[in-house]
Amino acid sequence: MEFAKQEYEFLSEIGLSPETPGCFVNGKWKAHGPTVSSINPVNNQKIATVVEASLEDYEEGMKACSEASKIWMELPAPKRGEVVRQIGDALREKLHHLGRLLSIEMGKILPEGIGEVQEVIDMCDFAVGLSRQLNGSVIPSERPNHMMLETWNPLGVVGVITAFNFPCAVLGWNACIALVCGNCVVWKGAPTTPLITIAITKLVSEVFERNKLPGAIFTSFCGGAEIGQAIAKDPRISLVSFTGSTKVGLMVQQTVHQRFGKCLLELSGNNAIIIMDDADIKLAVRSVLFAAVGTAGQRCTTCRRLLIHESIYQTVLDQLVDVYKQVKIGDPLEKGTLLGPLHTPESRKNFEKGIENIKSQACSIFLHCIGPILGGKILTGGSVIESEGNFVQPTIVEISPTADIVKEELFAPVLYVMKFQTFEEAVKINNSVPQGLSSSIFTRSPENIFKWLGPHGSDTGIVNVNIPTNGAEIGGAFGGEKATGGGREAGSDSWKQYMRRSTW
Amino acid sequence: MEFAKQEYEFLSEIGLSPETPGCFVNGKWKAHGPTVSSINPVNNQKIATVVEASLEDYEEGMKACSEASKIWMELPAPKRGEVVRQIGDALREKLHHLGRLLSIEMGKILPEGIGEVQEVIDMCDFAVGLSRQLNGSVIPSERPNHMMLETWNPLGVVGVITAFNFPCAVLGWNACIALVCGNCVVWKGAPTTPLITIAITKLVSEVFERNKLPGAIFTSFCGGAEIGQAIAKDPRISLVSFTGSTKVGLMVQQTVHQRFGKCLLELSGNNAIIIMDDADIKLAVRSVLFAAVGTAGQRCTTCRRLLIHESIYQTVLDQLVDVYKQVKIGDPLEKGTLLGPLHTPESRKNFEKGIENIKSQACSIFLHCIGPILGGKILTGGSVIESEGNFVQPTIVEISPTADIVKEELFAPVLYVMKFQTFEEAVKINNSVPQGLSSSIFTRSPENIFKWLGPHGSDTGIVNVNIPTNGAEIGGAFGGEKATGGGREAGSDSWKQYMRRSTW
Amino acid sequence: MEFAKQEYEFLSEIGLSPETPGCFVNGKWKAHGPTVSSINPVNNQKIATVVEASLEDYEEGMKACSEASKIWMELPAPKRGEVVRQIGDALREKLHHLGRLLSIEMGKILPEGIGEVQEVIDMCDFAVGLSRQLNGSVIPSERPNHMMLETWNPLGVVGVITAFNFPCAVLGWNACIALVCGNCVVWKGAPTTPLITIAITKLVSEVFERNKLPGAIFTSFCGGAEIGQAIAKDPRISLVSFTGSTKVGLMVQQTVHQRFGKCLLELSGNNAIIIMDDADIKLAVRSVLFAAVGTAGQRCTTCRRLLIHESIYQTVLDQLVDVYKQVKIGDPLEKGTLLGPLHTPESRKNFEKGIENIKSQACSIFLHCIGPILGGKILTGGSVIESEGNFVQPTIVEISPTADIVKEELFAPVLYVMKFQTFEEAVKINNSVPQGLSSSIFTRSPENIFKWLGPHGSDTGIVNVNIPTNGAEIGGAFGGEKATGGGREAGSDSWKQYMRRSTW
Amino acid sequence: MEFAKQEYEFLSEIGLSPETPGCFVNGKWKAHGPTVSSINPVNNQKIATVVEASLEDYEEGMKACSEASKIWMELPAPKRGEVVRQIGDALREKLHHLGRLLSIEMGKILPEGIGEVQEVIDMCDFAVGLSRQLNGSVIPSERPNHMMLETWNPLGVVGVITAFNFPCAVLGWNACIALVCGNCVVWKGAPTTPLITIAITKLVSEVFERNKLPGAIFTSFCGGAEIGQAIAKDPRISLVSFTGSTKVGLMVQQTVHQRFGKCLLELSGNNAIIIMDDADIKLAVRSVLFAAVGTAGQRCTTCRRLLIHESIYQTVLDQLVDVYKQVKIGDPLEKGTLLGPLHTPESRKNFEKGIENIKSQACSIFLHCIGPILGGKILTGGSVIESEGNFVQPTIVEISPTADIVKEELFAPVLYVMKFQTFEEAVKINNSVPQGLSSSIFTRSPENIFKWLGPHGSDTGIVNVNIPTNGAEIGGAFGGEKATGGGREAGSDSWKQYMRRSTW
Repeated sequence: MEFAKQEYEFLSEIGLSPETPGCFVNGKWKAHGPTVSSINPVNNQKIATVVEASLEDYEEGMKACSEASKIWMELPAPKRGEVVRQIGDALREKLHHLGRLLSIEMGKILPEGIGEVQEVIDMCDFAVGLSRQLNGSVIPSERPNHMMLETWNPLGVVGVITAFNFPCAVLGWNACIALVCGNCVVWKGAPTTPLITIAITKLVSEVFERNKLPGAIFTSFCGGAEIGQAIAKDPRISLVSFTGSTKVGLMVQQTVHQRFGKCLLELSGNNAIIIMDDADIKLAVRSVLFAAVGTAGQRCTTCRRLLIHESIYQTVLDQLVDVYKQVKIGDPLEKGTLLGPLHTPESRKNFEKGIENIKSQACSIFLHCIGPILGGKILTGGSVIESEGNFVQPTIVEISPTADIVKEELFAPVLYVMKFQTFEEAVKINNSVPQGLSSSIFTRSPENIFKWLGPHGSDTGIVNVNIPTNGAEIGGAFGGEKATGGGREAGSDSWKQYMRRSTW
Repeated sequence: MEFAKQEYEFLSEIGLSPETPGCFVNGKWKAHGPTVSSINPVNNQKIATVVEASLEDYEEGMKACSEASKIWMELPAPKRGEVVRQIGDALREKLHHLGRLLSIEMGKILPEGIGEVQEVIDMCDFAVGLSRQLNGSVIPSERPNHMMLETWNPLGVVGVITAFNFPCAVLGWNACIALVCGNCVVWKGAPTTPLITIAITKLVSEVFERNKLPGAIFTSFCGGAEIGQAIAKDPRISLVSFTGSTKVGLMVQQTVHQRFGKCLLELSGNNAIIIMDDADIKLAVRSVLFAAVGTAGQRCTTCRRLLIHESIYQTVLDQLVDVYKQVKIGDPLEKGTLLGPLHTPESRKNFEKGIENIKSQACSIFLHCIGPILGGKILTGGSVIESEGNFVQPTIVEISPTADIVKEELFAPVLYVMKFQTFEEAVKINNSVPQGLSSSIFTRSPENIFKWLGPHGSDTGIVNVNIPTNGAEIGGAFGGEKATGGGREAGSDSWKQYMRRSTW
Repeated sequence: MEFAKQEYEFLSEIGLSPETPGCFVNGKWKAHGPTVSSINPVNNQKIATVVEASLEDYEEGMKACSEASKIWMELPAPKRGEVVRQIGDALREKLHHLGRLLSIEMGKILPEGIGEVQEVIDMCDFAVGLSRQLNGSVIPSERPNHMMLETWNPLGVVGVITAFNFPCAVLGWNACIALVCGNCVVWKGAPTTPLITIAITKLVSEVFERNKLPGAIFTSFCGGAEIGQAIAKDPRISLVSFTGSTKVGLMVQQTVHQRFGKCLLELSGNNAIIIMDDADIKLAVRSVLFAAVGTAGQRCTTCRRLLIHESIYQTVLDQLVDVYKQVKIGDPLEKGTLLGPLHTPESRKNFEKGIENIKSQACSIFLHCIGPILGGKILTGGSVIESEGNFVQPTIVEISPTADIVKEELFAPVLYVMKFQTFEEAVKINNSVPQGLSSSIFTRSPENIFKWLGPHGSDTGIVNVNIPTNGAEIGGAFGGEKATGGGREAGSDSWKQYMRRSTW
Repeated sequence: MEFAKQEYEFLSEIGLSPETPGCFVNGKWKAHGPTVSSINPVNNQKIATVVEASLEDYEEGMKACSEASKIWMELPAPKRGEVVRQIGDALREKLHHLGRLLSIEMGKILPEGIGEVQEVIDMCDFAVGLSRQLNGSVIPSERPNHMMLETWNPLGVVGVITAFNFPCAVLGWNACIALVCGNCVVWKGAPTTPLITIAITKLVSEVFERNKLPGAIFTSFCGGAEIGQAIAKDPRISLVSFTGSTKVGLMVQQTVHQRFGKCLLELSGNNAIIIMDDADIKLAVRSVLFAAVGTAGQRCTTCRRLLIHESIYQTVLDQLVDVYKQVKIGDPLEKGTLLGPLHTPESRKNFEKGIENIKSQACSIFLHCIGPILGGKILTGGSVIESEGNFVQPTIVEISPTADIVKEELFAPVLYVMKFQTFEEAVKINNSVPQGLSSSIFTRSPENIFKWLGPHGSDTGIVNVNIPTNGAEIGGAFGGEKATGGGREAGSDSWKQYMRRSTW
């Protein structure tokens, strides 16, 4: 059998075929669930066909994984680190193919696709070092001739449920740390990015094979909500790391807690950029553009709200509308493209629905507000683009910060712009949404910077200064407060969440 | 007005009177809820009368507390530490009176009462040092001329809901840390220990007054489930630290998560001691006695299950039954008393119901099991003691580890004894209950010790060796896994739970 | 016998008498060395008489101290912390008397005297917390079933040699940490501040006595170079912490290293403040005044060099000369005095000699330099003040950064002022001296701040921004690079220098 | 030109030729000093010829290195980590060739040669992780609206002087950390292992070239004492890491301190193994064999003293003499060889001289001691082996712990055996030598283990239990106390020594 198009032939070099079973259970590829197609969002045509997991596949996989965990957790951590190092090298070798696949299946532009894979590679390298630093403590005891220790042991099995927008980076953040910490990993990728799930799993599994370790240490499923629920409910999975919407996240959390499991949540963001009157406007405008339009507004760290000081409001807005009009929209594989398609036709429909809401919002604001009405005016964009793919226009909306829709995360390149008068007001608006992932300020004043970072400043997990809301580095802890779920992934002491602490 | 008995007169020296309003709101004592009596468990007679909080009191208190948090979080941490140091000194001055009150109202023996207050004092001293060590990190950035920082800010208001068994130590663990971290504290003590709640609050509030700081920084309520629910639901309270049963804890957790708050749970324990064949038997028996009978079996770290190697089973059991028979039961204030009353008549009824269950359990084991039946045989104790107070006999029960009742926490001095053949079997039994707070092994073998502490060893949060299951030190992190809730209090990096992390 | 003046009578309340033996050896006060007078620098008259240590006293003290170390190091660290807490309380009770003594014997103004004692108290409080946090690490081993630990043990005896300018704070930084780390302390105070050495030792020793611990744990000698050398040579003293001149420090270091001991050096500083053109000039001028004139220029962190951007050079200078002229010189006990006497007549002579050098320097610059000559011009001050005491005028000198005398530390209120054109030039001048203790910049630009703190910025141990060169906090590590000796005292992980690391 | 023997042809694959210039200065290979031969210790014949550095070469190299440091320190640490990762990969590719070269030039057996190179590779991987974790701290300030930070900056240039016994591992420990910390490295390898110095430098330099970075970042010299002194004296080198004898180390230290530089010393060891009466004797005997005979007794962690409990003294000794007789001596490249030649003919002469001393020592003990004489009796070995190479017999000597020669490090496979009666006596003997690198105990008793690790236990930097004195892991800090110099390399917080701390 052959791939639908010749341009997909390279996929065979990263272990994919036109029809692939989508579960890696007990070291073997198989699957007995429904057959689904992987779709290219540029044209909504099939790339390849994948068979998803049945609940029987799940059970077989989890049983083997649970068994394998006894072997894996006994391996010294630095030896586990060596395996993860090899995983990094395996990905490094296929970096460009994997990046390309990300562009084709997810829809993000090629540099973003390659960048995402590189982040997994970096995580592997970071985790290698970590494998010799999962340090406990020796604490002075108040009793003579006693010793108090705090040590860390593996949890057993860690479940990782990832979303379509970062179909491999989020797996990387979790799996690299979970593995060196001595845990087996059970991964369910997004239902709409099965090829990435399979390609990554193939590369990882080959490393385990080369090291004569059970394949079940890394178990992976293509599938939907049914498999997700199975993971949430499974008492063999000590920690469930979930990335997705706040709504689903809360459900997962409750299910996991009922069985006394742990949760690590990375949920919705609703990230603001504040531009103070003393900001470097050029730098700010360029940053906002990339933060709001990058990955077609489908990042958790996408800038969705722009707060501009009134004294420079019109200047910034003019410049921004100007650069928005120059954004190159098109095939994410093409050089120079900045804005690819949304991931699915459904995403495009959500965009349309969102735009309608925005317009009606303007109206309700009119009826109920006393203050000046700044809401719901579309300054640029606002329409879908007629084509085979899921393309939409990058959109800027002038709206009141109190409008209901501003509190929600619309997963599309729609930017809400608002005006403010004082630093304090800007911070208040920034903190007024339920989500708490990322935020950023552009200013030249040390005073503002320190207030921004202090107890009365931004309440998000990532608090940037003079750089956009996106662009976290793996050395720090990634994650957010409030409705974003409170979890932290990647660097700093995030690894502690993947281990069990004993004080003795 | 006078106290019911002359022996209660000393209470006036720690700010108590025969009738006291039970809420400290906005720096003032008042209360508009139901009037309740504080009862001495030795004779079930009234010590004094307290008025509990109404929901209006709660709202008034929380409003002021929320306001006060803006002032408190701006104070430099070392200055907050200085206030906490003074709190420690204030408690140190009244150590013996407070310890005595603990004995009278909660029922624990005097040395335990004094020890509990001392623990709060130690926490204060520890927190003073911590106030200069709430360190964030400066992390190398991968971008030129960038800096990555991880800093910690106060959460705002921390709610602390404590239980009757440690009516002041648990407040101490939480409040000392919460305060130096820059948070205001809202405390709801147990409904049956209102005098302790009031006495501690008075001493604390005087320190704030002396420092010309708003009393609302430390807000405190006597009250029941209604106030507890109000705390769980209140979005102004960023973190709710709850100590109590697993059942209630899960409900609190769900309520708090729905509003995107954080939870710190210290729930039920079901702690085992394992005695290996190479143990120092004398040391082990003495340790088990104190761990199982201390605080009348009402500690979260009480030893509830005793696993004895078959080769020394009878020897240990004989010695244990022997020392149980010598336990001095009586007034907790009297010198030499080891076992005081249970806290309430209801606790005594639960004990009786538990004993009945144990006996019937034996029966059901008989019907359904194939293996050797070791269940439900009462070796010593098993009865309540006829008196005015809530006294019961310290009880040893021989039972199968698979009996359902062994999975539950019976809050009374009842010890389940079981036999095992191998180290692995003992660990398996240890880990077979839903709770995961504490556990201990007595052995002289380094191999066993290291296995016990390793990935295939005990799965509890506190893992002791050659000391009993109780006796945590404040320098380490206190808390447990699984149904115990996963929270960690007191030392190590527990303070991070009381702060908001920003990565920038 | 009575004190020379009635105003010294309060000294009897802190354990001093008109004639006191100056060694605390083996828990007893005695001394067989020369008799010396403690002199008040305000009038160069005797305050009281002290007998210094003989080498026999030293040997007796060290023998007992060495013995006592076996007992002290076995006490659990938190118990040692409790003793240090009590030391803090003992000092707190006598805060004002001690502060007054500092003013009288050392010559610093009263608020500085009280502030210095307060710093010791703060160190005690900090060390109490530290006593539960002297943490080692549990590190993952690469070998199966192995465990790698890093633990910290006491060194044994720590010698502390302090200087006259901070006659008790430096002891506090060292002794508080050394004691909680499990070390005994042997202290030699400055020969010219024996009363402070005795008063502090008395308070400390009473705490040990109350706790029924050997007095020899804290052994203290009044004495000069002979005792200093004995400490440096003594193989029973594992670590010698020396504060003083670079010249003597290097000699001590060599002696200690020859016997394989450890050294902690706090040597000369030559600290610069840079004022950029965008600085808050008013704030900067006030800061320079206090940094340069405070403690009569006898702090290790005194600002000795002022680098002003050419565009604001004259403005700043004019303002500075103006405030210098208003400095109130006089009795340090008097309210409002900013500048007390130098510590000794010899210090005053040094000042005079320095001024002469400065003038001749100007000359040599004139002869050998090609560039613009900015050297040696006295703008204000420059003379001693005729009186009984050691008073001198606060002095500002305009001089070239390349003048030889600028590389040296003149321990007096003499400030060298220089002009610069670019940030890079200012940093280069800042880094051009052998010493590397402290430095500070005044600027409003985040870019400059980050460059200042970066790899190409200031090379001193303390790098301040918009605050003066002095004013270290105990939570951080205090100390400097290059000729300042490289040691770090007080907070952060300074405690590790007082312990022996074992990896196993 | 060709290599002297065909078996050396593989050297050309790692960049070596029969005649090579021995300095890598400013990115180029050149050398103008004396020409020396690299000698194979198996037969004392030439392997190849190397030209050493002249002082002019040194100056040229250091000038370029100092310049390059400005570029290297500005690269973000994670980017530097990526370069070090590539160095690890480059070494990994040539692992077997490099290991073989180590055997041929240094004389260690092949598995040890390969193991040593592997350790450098592991260090590279570890350093990659570290490059994202060179963390400073954000410390709470006691002043309102202030922030206290502790950050780490590169030192500039780090000099590394290594010894013949670990001709590449010690470079690896230092250079990997120094490089990720942002420092350039100046390396002087041992004069007798120039080929290893050159081969490693070639691989490293190719990586810098591929990354378009100045070769001068890693500058390397073959040479002797003259170059060593130049490094010690050079004020451009902020830190000198020296590995070698205590005598030379102290001289280096003094020279470096005179110019206010920093030193990191890894000097002599004199390591003891204690075998308690409850030890696993078989395990202990095997461990002693490898620890005493491995690398022909030329490790710094070689076991030189064996302390056996009197009750098992003869049993252990008999077994040990027995296994010593079976040691296969011969060509280090041959499979099964355990003991290769000493490194140089001079080493062999030192061995002979040492044996003579040992015999005479016995005599002096006889004359001056009162206690039982156990000294100087050769139980096995004691002679050189007649051959072309530098082979000697593995030797066991029964001797008194007080004999003078026992205090010295004889760099050869000579083991001193002593008897003891109590644990305390054994520890006292262990601690009675000036050196303090490593020590080990074999026992089954937890009590002894904890005493061994406690304040009254072993005083060495590495304190092992039930494993030999050698065998450090890179995750921990390697180094020793007392005459061993106090430095720490490789893991834990060793990296801090390679950076400059700023508190602000």
